[in-house]
Amino acid sequence: MKISILSLFPQMFEVFNHSIVGKARMNNYVDIEIINIRDFSNNKHNKVDDYPFGGGAGMLMSVEPIYNSICYARRNLDGRVIYLGPRGDTFNQNKAYELSDNNHLIFLCGHYEGIDERSYNFIDEEISLGDFILTGGEMAAIPIIDSIVRLLSGVINKNSLDNESFTNDLMDFPQYTRPREFMGIAVPNVLLSGNHKEIDKWRREESLKITRKYKRYLLKDK
Amino acid sequence: MKISILSLFPQMFEVFNHSIVGKARMNNYVDIEIINIRDFSNNKHNKVDDYPFGGGAGMLMSVEPIYNSICYARRNLDGRVIYLGPRGDTFNQNKAYELSDNNHLIFLCGHYEGIDERSYNFIDEEISLGDFILTGGEMAAIPIIDSIVRLLSGVINKNSLDNESFTNDLMDFPQYTRPREFMGIAVPNVLLSGNHKEIDKWRREESLKITRKYKRYLLKDK
Repeated sequence: MKISILSLFPQMFEVFNHSIVGKARMNNYVDIEIINIRDFSNNKHNKVDDYPFGGGAGMLMSVEPIYNSICYARRNLDGRVIYLGPRGDTFNQNKAYELSDNNHLIFLCGHYEGIDERSYNFIDEEISLGDFILTGGEMAAIPIIDSIVRLLSGVINKNSLDNESFTNDLMDFPQYTRPREFMGIAVPNVLLSGNHKEIDKWRREESLKITRKYKRYLLKDK
Repeated sequence: MKISILSLFPQMFEVFNHSIVGKARMNNYVDIEIINIRDFSNNKHNKVDDYPFGGGAGMLMSVEPIYNSICYARRNLDGRVIYLGPRGDTFNQNKAYELSDNNHLIFLCGHYEGIDERSYNFIDEEISLGDFILTGGEMAAIPIIDSIVRLLSGVINKNSLDNESFTNDLMDFPQYTRPREFMGIAVPNVLLSGNHKEIDKWRREESLKITRKYKRYLLKDK
């Protein structure tokens, strides 16, 4: 998969050099290209923002550099242009799976007060990280791209993906590791029993309990 | 405000040296301290993870380094310990405002398959970024801390905060900047009229339209 990120703050994506996404890039499971929108300003001062018509606080990102940088991202390979903004449907695990099936995703990160409304003509889809405000789309692109990349074939052990929260509509069960006792709190005996049928049963029950307690809406008819 | 981040990947928070959060740190509106959990392992190899009791894929973060690093974060100033995990209530703008009122927030970022369940004894609150899986809590801490810091007094122009989406239960209105026409698409005439009463009326109507269309659940009785 190829991912192009369009941003005024390319340095913010240093995070993708580390941990699992960093390894996925090194192993060529994903090609992440970070494009500086400022390089696509036709203005002699590389200006990319301007005052809003009709007045108001703050600056707005101009449509032309946005349009130009989208064209550049698509130069060799067509791609789905996703704008990270508040009007979009809220991102979730199903959306992560759906997006992980694309050849080329192009993420447009807005900053300042937002983007000139006409930019929507060049966007395929808007996605929201949630009902809260960020300083820029970069802050939404980071977790969203992370959650997509980890689903790509080869990046993570398949067994890990099958057992986790929000997959199968169940939350993950509680897990314990050494030491057997910490500050007087012991690991549940069943996990030390070596009886895998009992352990599986306990884990399924605990998954259900946790899902009922914390995320009841994930349950269908269980 | 002081924010302590407990993580196995301190390099991932380079993002907080840039843009609005970077400026907020420089101007001492917020003190962000990044603590490497690995420094609090008592193990001679600085080991911080181990196999889960009862078997299963992946590694788990051990409770002891988590406990030790929380104690360290609280060495001078008590603080609210927030674990970024799937069981928590989903983060939103009200939660951002609530958290922005604290003196000291301590964010614990899990990684690998998660944390030893006994760590919950040392956590005040769990917050979820949304119904999707990340490679680590770092990816949730980044947008959540960003959305809190921008609310701190002095960080952002107060007028900008009052007019934005999810505040007043309304989405932001469409905005336009120069040029007046781009690829045949013109800026709405009303915004060029100079009539501020008309502009305010248009903006309120557009806010309502957008909220009805995209985020109807934000509306109460409007």
